[in-house]
Amino acid sequence: MKVGILGGGQLGRMLALAGHPLGLEFRFLDPSPEAPARHVGHLVCAAYDDREALARFADGLDVVTFEFENVPVGSLEFLASRVRVAPTPAALGIGQDRFAEKSTFTRLGIATNAFAVADSAAGFVDAAMSLGLPAVVKTRRMGYDGKGQWVARTREELERIAAAVSDCRGLIAEAHVPFQRELSILSVRSQSGETRFYDLVQNYHAGGILRESLAPAPNLSARLVEQARGAAARLLEHTHYVGVLAIELFDVDGRLLANEIAPRVHNSGHWTIEGAAISQFENHLRAVCGLPLGSTATVGASAMLNLIGEAPATAGMLAVEGAHVHLYGKSARPGRKIGHVTIWAETPEELTARRRDFSNRVGVPA
Amino acid sequence: MKVGILGGGQLGRMLALAGHPLGLEFRFLDPSPEAPARHVGHLVCAAYDDREALARFADGLDVVTFEFENVPVGSLEFLASRVRVAPTPAALGIGQDRFAEKSTFTRLGIATNAFAVADSAAGFVDAAMSLGLPAVVKTRRMGYDGKGQWVARTREELERIAAAVSDCRGLIAEAHVPFQRELSILSVRSQSGETRFYDLVQNYHAGGILRESLAPAPNLSARLVEQARGAAARLLEHTHYVGVLAIELFDVDGRLLANEIAPRVHNSGHWTIEGAAISQFENHLRAVCGLPLGSTATVGASAMLNLIGEAPATAGMLAVEGAHVHLYGKSARPGRKIGHVTIWAETPEELTARRRDFSNRVGVPA
Repeated sequence: MKVGILGGGQLGRMLALAGHPLGLEFRFLDPSPEAPARHVGHLVCAAYDDREALARFADGLDVVTFEFENVPVGSLEFLASRVRVAPTPAALGIGQDRFAEKSTFTRLGIATNAFAVADSAAGFVDAAMSLGLPAVVKTRRMGYDGKGQWVARTREELERIAAAVSDCRGLIAEAHVPFQRELSILSVRSQSGETRFYDLVQNYHAGGILRESLAPAPNLSARLVEQARGAAARLLEHTHYVGVLAIELFDVDGRLLANEIAPRVHNSGHWTIEGAAISQFENHLRAVCGLPLGSTATVGASAMLNLIGEAPATAGMLAVEGAHVHLYGKSARPGRKIGHVTIWAETPEELTARRRDFSNRVGVPA
Repeated sequence: MKVGILGGGQLGRMLALAGHPLGLEFRFLDPSPEAPARHVGHLVCAAYDDREALARFADGLDVVTFEFENVPVGSLEFLASRVRVAPTPAALGIGQDRFAEKSTFTRLGIATNAFAVADSAAGFVDAAMSLGLPAVVKTRRMGYDGKGQWVARTREELERIAAAVSDCRGLIAEAHVPFQRELSILSVRSQSGETRFYDLVQNYHAGGILRESLAPAPNLSARLVEQARGAAARLLEHTHYVGVLAIELFDVDGRLLANEIAPRVHNSGHWTIEGAAISQFENHLRAVCGLPLGSTATVGASAMLNLIGEAPATAGMLAVEGAHVHLYGKSARPGRKIGHVTIWAETPEELTARRRDFSNRVGVPA
């Protein structure tokens, strides 16, 4: 089968590395000639809304999926008229707009923090104030890795943010949640509607960027797991989803609030390459290609560390027992995710020791 | 780093799939434009002795290795004058000639079955007879998967074989060994001389072709493991080897006889992708690139089944819990290795059940 992927970043690259063994062939569409996936498939280098390039890209493909959620929905609909697309453009649309996303949570009975939008600057400030201070203000679209996101501690700060944007309808205010930890759940649904869940992972962010994921997350009650799986199941069902879906969650005193979704393979699921029976990448491909899903069972314990800005020397990282290095073929740049390392161990205790060894030898902050 | 690989078959393909995460880039030299590795690296399509193409292939590479042992040693020496080559051309040379191979075993004190060569047809028949009947006759060079190999049960059969070849110096006779089972050991040596061993595996051949490998092999005494590791260690040391080396062994009443070596990653090591901490492919690349070796520890239990001639439907194979499908992108042809499946499980008992499930559903002979 020939698989087309919109986006040729590291997620596309890892999808292809997982899919070649299944005999799949890959074509990517990406505006950058330096797209990390270029070494593992054919790259069509063009803008995401270039219809002529989209037509060329689609020609002869069996299925199209995406690794980047800010692809124009219109482009996906254009492709869907020519070739099967999974997940559906509708699911992508929900993930692209924080208001649609949170409204969907609410409609499906998935707990989330309070939120508000408004038509005018004054209305926006009032709506945000009604949620209580501090308030979190986000752009509804195109935010990622902490970009397009502010915390307002006073009415004046809210007014300043509202005045700075050209149209307040592009903003959403959210109640600030004093959560204990951030978790995420990766789920996958097949064409036949079969659904599987990976173990919940605990995530550590800094500066708005994911730094580390621990899998499985420690101290999980059955109720917590039930809540997370229930939320994923309702979203998958509601959107007739096909592929991997990630949900980021806040743990507030043992109760989960859904924060956001990613309608694609996700950074907090990279540990599944070494730490699960079948990785998120292979399961996404199995789903979109109409193949049976594979086991999502956790094997051992894993810590996934993002390499941000600049990678430490490969030899130093590989000298740590259980370290699996994944470099994306990207040039160094401050704040850029250029790779990740998964430290794997048979037991959580062994993982702790190896994780410490990694910090000591390589110096990535623990 | 840029890695050049002589041969673009499935071994090259799997090397590249293991190496991209390390940030390595790949270039292959292969006479076939349909070489399975073409999707995961740049393919220079030329004969192995085309000096102009070899020079073009070598340009800008950091290291050259091979995935096919019948590359002319002269080509490797030509490359070695331009770029680092690992393993050494000398190690390749030993593996290419069964007489050099068995002489090396003997010189290093590694037990092997008796063997003989001769300068003339009559001398060859006498020498073979002196080993006892039945005798195994093999071509010294270019044999693989049972090709170039005969069993002679009478003097007349020996005479017929000797008369059929243009030059009897190209033949070797070996004593027929009534072995209980076939085992193999995969070992790896780094540039700094560090050596690691994978667990011994048990192999099942039919029609001269490897059909299945079971890892780890059952019923291994400490003495057997000691023998196998000792043989590997002596060969690695003797040849200043860098990379993965495979040795096929016969188990004769608990005593091992070395049968042959492969100076490369090996079919009986494919299980290491899922069944070992770090695969033979990644460890080969770590070695030839001067990186630290990774753990060769076995994780769980694995059965690797070759897909020969024609592949069963992918969906049927993937429906078996624990089945990992590896297709090589080759067209179907009788006797051709076109893929393999590794069935992985946490315990040998679970593996037996999954292996049986695979036979029941897919119908590959057990």
